[in-house]
Amino acid sequence: MKELKIGILGFGTVGAGVVEGIRKNEELISQRTSIRPYVAKIADIDIESDRGIAIGEGILTTDALSVIDDPDIDVIVELVGGVTIAKNFVLRALRNGKPVVTANKALLAECGEEIYQAARDSKAGIYYEAAVGGGIPVLRSQRAGLIGNHIESIYGILNGTCNYILTRMENEGLPFDEILVDAQKLGYAETPPDLDIDGIDTAHKAVILASMAYGAPIPMKACPVKGIRGLSNQEIVNADELGYRIKLLAIIKDNDGEVELSVEPALIPKNHMIASVSDSFNAVFVRGDLVDDTMYYGRGAGRLPTGSAVIGDIMEAAADKFNGAGVPVSVTMMLQKDALAYCPSEKIVKRYYLRLSLFDQPGSMAKLMDIMGRNNISIASIVQNERFKGGYAPVVILTHNIKEADYTSAIKEIGELDISGADPVSIRIEDFE
Amino acid sequence: MKELKIGILGFGTVGAGVVEGIRKNEELISQRTSIRPYVAKIADIDIESDRGIAIGEGILTTDALSVIDDPDIDVIVELVGGVTIAKNFVLRALRNGKPVVTANKALLAECGEEIYQAARDSKAGIYYEAAVGGGIPVLRSQRAGLIGNHIESIYGILNGTCNYILTRMENEGLPFDEILVDAQKLGYAETPPDLDIDGIDTAHKAVILASMAYGAPIPMKACPVKGIRGLSNQEIVNADELGYRIKLLAIIKDNDGEVELSVEPALIPKNHMIASVSDSFNAVFVRGDLVDDTMYYGRGAGRLPTGSAVIGDIMEAAADKFNGAGVPVSVTMMLQKDALAYCPSEKIVKRYYLRLSLFDQPGSMAKLMDIMGRNNISIASIVQNERFKGGYAPVVILTHNIKEADYTSAIKEIGELDISGADPVSIRIEDFE
Repeated sequence: MKELKIGILGFGTVGAGVVEGIRKNEELISQRTSIRPYVAKIADIDIESDRGIAIGEGILTTDALSVIDDPDIDVIVELVGGVTIAKNFVLRALRNGKPVVTANKALLAECGEEIYQAARDSKAGIYYEAAVGGGIPVLRSQRAGLIGNHIESIYGILNGTCNYILTRMENEGLPFDEILVDAQKLGYAETPPDLDIDGIDTAHKAVILASMAYGAPIPMKACPVKGIRGLSNQEIVNADELGYRIKLLAIIKDNDGEVELSVEPALIPKNHMIASVSDSFNAVFVRGDLVDDTMYYGRGAGRLPTGSAVIGDIMEAAADKFNGAGVPVSVTMMLQKDALAYCPSEKIVKRYYLRLSLFDQPGSMAKLMDIMGRNNISIASIVQNERFKGGYAPVVILTHNIKEADYTSAIKEIGELDISGADPVSIRIEDFE
Repeated sequence: MKELKIGILGFGTVGAGVVEGIRKNEELISQRTSIRPYVAKIADIDIESDRGIAIGEGILTTDALSVIDDPDIDVIVELVGGVTIAKNFVLRALRNGKPVVTANKALLAECGEEIYQAARDSKAGIYYEAAVGGGIPVLRSQRAGLIGNHIESIYGILNGTCNYILTRMENEGLPFDEILVDAQKLGYAETPPDLDIDGIDTAHKAVILASMAYGAPIPMKACPVKGIRGLSNQEIVNADELGYRIKLLAIIKDNDGEVELSVEPALIPKNHMIASVSDSFNAVFVRGDLVDDTMYYGRGAGRLPTGSAVIGDIMEAAADKFNGAGVPVSVTMMLQKDALAYCPSEKIVKRYYLRLSLFDQPGSMAKLMDIMGRNNISIASIVQNERFKGGYAPVVILTHNIKEADYTSAIKEIGELDISGADPVSIRIEDFE
C-alpha cells in the first residue's frame, strides 16, 4: 500500500471538509485505490480557530511555502481562494513538480491559460473537479465517460444561491430583496452577494465547462453575463402561467463551429428535467453527439460535498503521479487549440419573453404588432390580461426563434414610439432544442 | 501521438455504434487524449450484412480468436453478448494481458467474480461502464468522483423498456399488454420481452452497482426481483391521485452494515428528481456520506449512446495500458472484501401501498383495521372511494414504515378472513429518506 502525503493550503470550510472526509473514509479509500491518503501538512493564516477536527502536532503551519516546497509532499490542494496569492501558490507547486488539486473557479476562469500551460510544462497536472458543480462529477464525466463526444451544448444551473432564491420566489411569492436578506441570514447567500446574484460565479464555471468542451481557455470577456438581481415576481408568475420556470442558466453551445456562451436568467419548460432542480442544488445538462442528452445533479457547494470532489481529485492525482502518467487529460483537453471562434451575439437565434406596459389606448397593440412584423419577429403567443393599472395594460409576448439583432431593433422602436410605459422586460426562453 | 489498435468482438448494434463514433470523432479524441484510436479488427459470425459503415479490407473476420490472440491488438472490446462464449473470450483476452472493455451486464452479474479476479491476476483490467446505464457515466462517477464516499444508497431506473411502458401507461391510460405489443413493434421492447419486463436486466445492473459500492461481487440470488408484468392501470391511477408515480426501481442500501438489494416496482413521490425520468431514459440516484444526493441521467441504451460509453472505456483502458498503470480501480473496487452481509428481507423496514377489494358489508373495515393494528402496521392514509363493483369496494392503504414480516403476516390474515375478494396488490413506497 502506497502512502500519499497531502499538503493543504487554506483551512476554511472546504479544507476542513476534505480533512474530515479523508479521516472518515481513509480505510475505505485505501481499500478501493490501494493508496492510503494522509494529510501531512495544512497551511493557513489562522492556525488557532477550532474547526471541530483534531489535528496532530506539527501539521498546521502559517507558512504555505514550507508546504509547497516540502519534498515529502506528493500533492498540493489549493483552497486559499481568490486569484493573486492562489495563483502564485499553484504555479510554484506545479514548478516543483507537484500535482495540484483546486476548487478555485475564479482562478481558473481568469488565469486558466497560464495555469494549464504550467501544468503541461511541468507534467505535474492540475485537477479541478470541485471548481464546477461542487460535489457533482461533471468535469470528470466530460473528460472521461464522454471523451468520445463532440459536445453540442451544455446548460448549467451552477449557483446554489441563485437557485435557492428563485425557488423561494416561485414557491412563496416573496420579492427578490426580501428573500436575499433571509438567505444571507440563513447562510445561503454571502454578504455582499454580488458574485452570486450578478452571475459572475456562474460565469466562472461556464467558462471552465466551455473551455473543456471546446479545447482552449476561454476569456471571461467572451461570456456575456446577466444575473437575477431585480428580477420581479411578475416574471415568475407569468412564466408559471405559460408553463415555464425561470432559472439562472449557463448556456454553452456549438453554434455552427463557433462557441456560443452566456449566463442569463432563462424561461425553461417546466417538464424539462433541469426545471426540477430546486433549492440550492446544481445540475449540468450535457448533450453529446454520440451520447445524446445526459444530466448530472447534486450539491454545488458545501463543506463535505465539495470535499468529496476534492478527495476524488486527490486520489486521481495520486494514481497519475505514482503511475508516472504524464500530463493528464484535465490539462490536455484545455490546450487542444490556440484559439476558438466565438459566435457574436447578433448572430444568435433565440426565443424571447417580453413584458411590456402598453398604453391603454386605441392603436397601441396595432403599432406594437407592426413593429414586430417589420423586424421579422415571429410571435408564438401573446397574453394581455385585463389588469389595467394607471392606464397601462401588461402585455406578455413569447417569440419564436428570432435574431437578437432584430429583437434589439424592435425594442428600440418600441421605446421611441409613445405606446409603452416603463422599460420592457426581456428574458431568454430556452427550449433545449 | 500513440496509436491504439482496437479489436472488436461482435459487430451488432453497439459494435457498429462504436465504430461509427470512433470514425466520427477520431480527430477530436486524438487531440484530447494524445492517443489515436484505430479499429484494427472486427470479429463477427456475420461479416456480410451491411451495417451502413464502410470497413476497410482485412478488418472483418469470423475468427474471434485470431483477434484475441493478435499480439498487435492493444484492447479487446467484447460486444458478443450472452454469457458462455463471451466469458471465454474475455478470460482469454485477459490472460493474453489485454485489457477488455465490455457492455455485457449479464456476464458481469453472473460471472463477475471470476472475471474481476482474472483481470486482477493478469493486471490487464476490465472496463464496463456501458453495462450499467448505457451512455451515462455512472460507474465511473462512483469509482472516481465519488471514490471518497461511503455509498449510503443507490436508486436506479435502469431499464428503458420498462420506463417507456410505464410512462405510456401513465400518459395514455392504456393497459400494459397493449403498450408492450406496441413497444415491440416500435423496437422499444424485444421479443420475447421477459428479461426486461420481469426485471432481470435491471437486476443485472443493480448487482454491478451494488458490488462496486460495497466492494465484492454480489450473486444474482442476493437480489429479489419483481418486474412490471401485469401491473394494472388502477395502480398507476391510484398512485397519481396520491402524489406518486410508479417506476421499476433498483434499490440498493447500506442497511446498518448489511447490503439491502432489490428490484421492484415502487411508488415514488412525483416531486422527486428521479420521478421526472420518463420514456426510455435511465437515471441513477446515488447518495454518498460526503457528497449527499447526486443523480446521473441519460440514455440507457442505443447504438451511439452505448457506443459513447464503450469509447470512454477504450480510451481509459488505453491510457492505463500505455502508462503501465496496473490493476485499475474498476477491478480493485470489486474485490475489496471476501464476502458481504446481506440484509434479510424480514428485517427490512419499508412503506407499502396496498389495494384491497373489501366486501361491502358492515364490519369489513373494522376487521381490516383490527388485523392491521395487531400486526403493528401503522397507516399513513386510507382511501375508500364509493366505487362499488359487484359488492366490493376498492380500498387503498398507504402504510408508514413497517417491517416486511409484519406486513406479510397481515396479508396472510386478510386472506384467511372472509372480508376481501381478489388478491390484494402490494407495492413498495420509496420516499428516499
